Amino acid sequence: MKTLNVAIIGHGFMGRAHSHAWKNVAQFFDVDIQPNLRVACGRDQAALRRFADRWGWAEIETDWRETVARPDVHIVDIVTPPLLHHDIAIQAARHGKHIFCEKPLALNARQAQEMYDAAQTAGVVHYVNHNYRRVPAIALAKQLIQEGRLGRIYHWRSAYLNSSWVDPQRPMTAALQKEKGGIGVAADLHSHTIDLARYLVGEIASVVALTRTFVTERPRLGEAGTGRVTVDDATSMLVEFENGALGSFEASRFALGRRNYNYFEIYGSRGSLSFNLERMNELEFFSLDDPEFVRGFKTILATERVHPYAAAWWHPGHIIGYEHTFYHAVFDFLNAVSTGKPIAPNFADGVQIARVLDAATRAAETGEQVVLDAG
Amino acid sequence: MKTLNVAIIGHGFMGRAHSHAWKNVAQFFDVDIQPNLRVACGRDQAALRRFADRWGWAEIETDWRETVARPDVHIVDIVTPPLLHHDIAIQAARHGKHIFCEKPLALNARQAQEMYDAAQTAGVVHYVNHNYRRVPAIALAKQLIQEGRLGRIYHWRSAYLNSSWVDPQRPMTAALQKEKGGIGVAADLHSHTIDLARYLVGEIASVVALTRTFVTERPRLGEAGTGRVTVDDATSMLVEFENGALGSFEASRFALGRRNYNYFEIYGSRGSLSFNLERMNELEFFSLDDPEFVRGFKTILATERVHPYAAAWWHPGHIIGYEHTFYHAVFDFLNAVSTGKPIAPNFADGVQIARVLDAATRAAETGEQVVLDAG
Amino acid sequence: MKTLNVAIIGHGFMGRAHSHAWKNVAQFFDVDIQPNLRVACGRDQAALRRFADRWGWAEIETDWRETVARPDVHIVDIVTPPLLHHDIAIQAARHGKHIFCEKPLALNARQAQEMYDAAQTAGVVHYVNHNYRRVPAIALAKQLIQEGRLGRIYHWRSAYLNSSWVDPQRPMTAALQKEKGGIGVAADLHSHTIDLARYLVGEIASVVALTRTFVTERPRLGEAGTGRVTVDDATSMLVEFENGALGSFEASRFALGRRNYNYFEIYGSRGSLSFNLERMNELEFFSLDDPEFVRGFKTILATERVHPYAAAWWHPGHIIGYEHTFYHAVFDFLNAVSTGKPIAPNFADGVQIARVLDAATRAAETGEQVVLDAG
Amino acid sequence: MKTLNVAIIGHGFMGRAHSHAWKNVAQFFDVDIQPNLRVACGRDQAALRRFADRWGWAEIETDWRETVARPDVHIVDIVTPPLLHHDIAIQAARHGKHIFCEKPLALNARQAQEMYDAAQTAGVVHYVNHNYRRVPAIALAKQLIQEGRLGRIYHWRSAYLNSSWVDPQRPMTAALQKEKGGIGVAADLHSHTIDLARYLVGEIASVVALTRTFVTERPRLGEAGTGRVTVDDATSMLVEFENGALGSFEASRFALGRRNYNYFEIYGSRGSLSFNLERMNELEFFSLDDPEFVRGFKTILATERVHPYAAAWWHPGHIIGYEHTFYHAVFDFLNAVSTGKPIAPNFADGVQIARVLDAATRAAETGEQVVLDAG
Repeated sequence: MKTLNVAIIGHGFMGRAHSHAWKNVAQFFDVDIQPNLRVACGRDQAALRRFADRWGWAEIETDWRETVARPDVHIVDIVTPPLLHHDIAIQAARHGKHIFCEKPLALNARQAQEMYDAAQTAGVVHYVNHNYRRVPAIALAKQLIQEGRLGRIYHWRSAYLNSSWVDPQRPMTAALQKEKGGIGVAADLHSHTIDLARYLVGEIASVVALTRTFVTERPRLGEAGTGRVTVDDATSMLVEFENGALGSFEASRFALGRRNYNYFEIYGSRGSLSFNLERMNELEFFSLDDPEFVRGFKTILATERVHPYAAAWWHPGHIIGYEHTFYHAVFDFLNAVSTGKPIAPNFADGVQIARVLDAATRAAETGEQVVLDAG
Repeated sequence: MKTLNVAIIGHGFMGRAHSHAWKNVAQFFDVDIQPNLRVACGRDQAALRRFADRWGWAEIETDWRETVARPDVHIVDIVTPPLLHHDIAIQAARHGKHIFCEKPLALNARQAQEMYDAAQTAGVVHYVNHNYRRVPAIALAKQLIQEGRLGRIYHWRSAYLNSSWVDPQRPMTAALQKEKGGIGVAADLHSHTIDLARYLVGEIASVVALTRTFVTERPRLGEAGTGRVTVDDATSMLVEFENGALGSFEASRFALGRRNYNYFEIYGSRGSLSFNLERMNELEFFSLDDPEFVRGFKTILATERVHPYAAAWWHPGHIIGYEHTFYHAVFDFLNAVSTGKPIAPNFADGVQIARVLDAATRAAETGEQVVLDAG
Repeated sequence: MKTLNVAIIGHGFMGRAHSHAWKNVAQFFDVDIQPNLRVACGRDQAALRRFADRWGWAEIETDWRETVARPDVHIVDIVTPPLLHHDIAIQAARHGKHIFCEKPLALNARQAQEMYDAAQTAGVVHYVNHNYRRVPAIALAKQLIQEGRLGRIYHWRSAYLNSSWVDPQRPMTAALQKEKGGIGVAADLHSHTIDLARYLVGEIASVVALTRTFVTERPRLGEAGTGRVTVDDATSMLVEFENGALGSFEASRFALGRRNYNYFEIYGSRGSLSFNLERMNELEFFSLDDPEFVRGFKTILATERVHPYAAAWWHPGHIIGYEHTFYHAVFDFLNAVSTGKPIAPNFADGVQIARVLDAATRAAETGEQVVLDAG
Repeated sequence: MKTLNVAIIGHGFMGRAHSHAWKNVAQFFDVDIQPNLRVACGRDQAALRRFADRWGWAEIETDWRETVARPDVHIVDIVTPPLLHHDIAIQAARHGKHIFCEKPLALNARQAQEMYDAAQTAGVVHYVNHNYRRVPAIALAKQLIQEGRLGRIYHWRSAYLNSSWVDPQRPMTAALQKEKGGIGVAADLHSHTIDLARYLVGEIASVVALTRTFVTERPRLGEAGTGRVTVDDATSMLVEFENGALGSFEASRFALGRRNYNYFEIYGSRGSLSFNLERMNELEFFSLDDPEFVRGFKTILATERVHPYAAAWWHPGHIIGYEHTFYHAVFDFLNAVSTGKPIAPNFADGVQIARVLDAATRAAETGEQVVLDAG
């Protein structure tokens, strides 16, 4: 089996989830390429050392430019704050590295487009990690739609809600300051649901939006006074899809009781679906094909051998968790590298998502519907 | 006990639900006024006769103008198509009748305002039957909000979905033709959710909206050719409330698997709620007051003696159904007549709801946010 | 239309539910016989007077023997404590009255048999009000089973739980004293689930059981000291059905959080069902007929026109409540009277249920499996 | 950090789950002992080789006696069919190895007792892998009970259901033949629920039981004719706990729609709980401490940092899966080895569980209640 060396840039929460997948994917999936955890890159050397030791990264680096230039690195995995994605990805591409990039791809559509162009020019495999496409239940949803089991789609209804910032005393961080690279819920959460909507329904044609920052001043950590929150706490959008469906998206960090509530409903002319990431092994499916007196939403536990990715795991009914989606992404990414075929979502998808987010920002600012140009 | 005579104008689905409540309210609630089912009015004499016999209306009439002018009628219950509400209510008011009017109050805010003015001028009790306020679980929601258990409200998220028109072969009716008095989902379904949002959250300050008619031509019943649908199949709105909360409303008749899915979620700084009319005896409540390790949405079965209206019915756990809300409305209406105090929602509420709907129509037409003036 | 006079004996909680149904059945169902609320019988004359006035019973009586002997009474509705069912039913039968009897039919199988014999000898229509058979979702379950959609049945799992006596300070009543005619959970709750199990699965062949009184002494109301509880607080049974299925039944008044939790699951070779009375409009159905990748329990909201009894009520998705089952029972009872055909469950069913309960008592006392003889 | 060598005996489904945990535990938990995957032992050398390569076991062995005798092995992990547990564990103990043994511990209480005696005599750490104790939601249940939040416990109701053998054409295997070491649902599934019941409620004092083999003949794989199933397809038990609570247990492989449905409810004088392994991140909790008008079962998503084990994983709302319980078990086992303190459930627990299962077998055979002696 071929072995390729991976460099990871960043070592936070996402660094753990990615490392876990790189390290163990081959135990559960029959990979053609064995990833080798070659080098971890970060700025805080002590923390980086602990991270590398724990996860088995052979070396550490503190300069990402040197890291992506290393001849012994074949794959660059970007898990830094989004502010840095653009520069790292472009340099990695120029050095001919395959790129596995955390979401959101970039801070705006222009950045995303440049990243896409660089990766295409370099001919490398590029991937943006909207990992929820690879939840078995969602991959099953895609399959049902492709088989025509929903018919013509009329509605996409979605929400991505958590309660991470409800506490007004939770102190300020850079993540809440746009000028420090912070992104709001639109880029953080909607990027995921837009990815799913495009995957499952189609391209978005126009947007209206409202946005809100509920708590505008927060105490500074270890300092007197407060700092100004310059990202959104909540953003809602209504969209028209190119195929005529209506869509809604709501994202908030101010929804008590919701923790990772990535929820959607899809209604079509022959059937309907709903999904909630907090119960990510389940898909709700309603079908007109059922006899009239026994119609209803059915809870499919997507852990059967016939379900996408599920045969790699445990017996039916033995559920999987959040990090398993990273295994699926890494497996498919390695296959893409092996075969040279593109993987989705890739930087082209990242561009489209960023275009919708940019349009939503403009719509929220102006109060006017923004029509996306044909792109 | 005092007895007052009721006249009902209209005898369809809603006529049944109202008749049932007038006839039986006094068995379950201690009323000060005994309603007497005096006269039923309608145009199809044979059907009206059967209706009156079945429900115990003492007489029938075919002219609503004569009906509302009868000196022996004290209460007029309007269950006609919405097209007629305006004229009937105004005449009824002029004749000094108390008015119990089905929703939506009117076809637009101007009509609603005239109805309100007439009723106020006449000094009669007026009520618009957004009956869901009187679902025990929703009345409980109101109580929790009034007690401050949700804190400052950040989000209202709602949908009113059914699947009544998904079948493209379902034939045309007047209800789908605006020019024949038909109303779309906005007026039909959103009027209910706007009522609930105003009741539970507050006044709406601005609106953006999208609207859609998915099936624009339908076969004519018993005729060749098709007719043009001139009302909306689906309308979605995003709103700002005066108190700063964000709101979403989605209504559709194209949501397979949903039958009477009047659903909302409310998120506040201290707690959250959710409700689904298809499980109307239940309220979901999340509270920050719970210790951190036992927080979660709680399913309250609102059938306890301590819950609003519930003591009038059966033992705890013995659920009630759709029509019980009509009893609650009739009981409270009779109390209003007895005490001379207003009941809510009344025509003033109907005006506000119609103003939001008018704004939504304009927003959907223009693609622009519409700010409601202070009213 | 023919009119028959009804006498009701008893006027408590069940008196209300029955009166409501007699009074209003003809508004929702096309009856051949119009029931006339002729006479209400009870011992507390003042309370009885209020009851009769409220519900429209034309007369009152205080002696049940005279009541059941009245020539102008055609139907006797027995809603007294179970202690009296036996004598009243036998007298009513002897006077040729049709009998609508609340559950449990009798205190034991011997009594039930005598009631059955008397009713059969008299040739009257007899019915025991295990009303839950007529919940639309349960009638639908029966239909699915009859159509073979569950195949061979392997398991019946049931529980009927409430929390009515968890509070150890709740004072003593006659209902907790066997010597005063009190019945425990077995007769009160299991009688319902045994009825459902026989209806849906088949006859029970043998029983093992455990029983418990958790709080054996309770304060007397308005008296010093405590009284001894002489009925069971909880009883559990395991049974073999004649067709080879295994069954479980658990009943308790000590299950906090459950209020009227009449729950069952049925597992067969082709499909499965589950039901919970607290969500009585819903039936969960799993079918092997579904393609493997979309199998799951489906929530059927049994409010469609194609569902049993549902067309008589409201639109789909508009749920019904507890008391509607009484309408269904009264409607079917009136049809039985009209056609002279038996209705189920009748006194023969009451006998079988009592035999199972008697066997459970013996099993719990002896710790041994009790085999029911072929009956 | 100290390193200890592990030998695994067996390499099936459970071999994968255990290997994964040994290999990765140190990435998520701060272990004092680093487990080293030293040797994998099995009989099918080719399959074993693949297994060892995939999971990183340094060597393979085909003779378990030699494996457990190796001086370089410190921990023996037994994942063979239950038939072999007894001999392997006793030999491992005699060689002074710490023992991590899959469930059920043994084929009967006598075997289990001998294993316990051997392990105690040897002074080694012994553990039987009833891993569900270490589901965070169940560990939380334990904590709630220990804090007195349920009060006095009245009821344990449980079921462990799957549908693995509903298909009558699924061919015979050794697992269905007692004479080949096969175990039925009682030992396979009830052993887990008995472990949970003892953990959460207390010791079991008496048992009544029914058992059934629904499909007694199955086709032989690759041979003509059928073989006789000599284990149970379903077994149900009712028990009395020493503390006076009543318990029920049902296990079946004939429950269509259930895949790994390890379900329980606990009812106490102050609160109630329910849990379903198919939604293993959730615990339902009802508490009398809540004000009366907001009581209900609460769905706690046990992924908060304050929940047992959860802080080691992802952010709140990011659920974990089946295999995570193995990490928890391995982590606690390593701590036990490190500190020399016992871990639960251990072989003493295995003995008690086997005694209940033996009693259930006798109860089912005789139809009589079996009282466990004080042990």
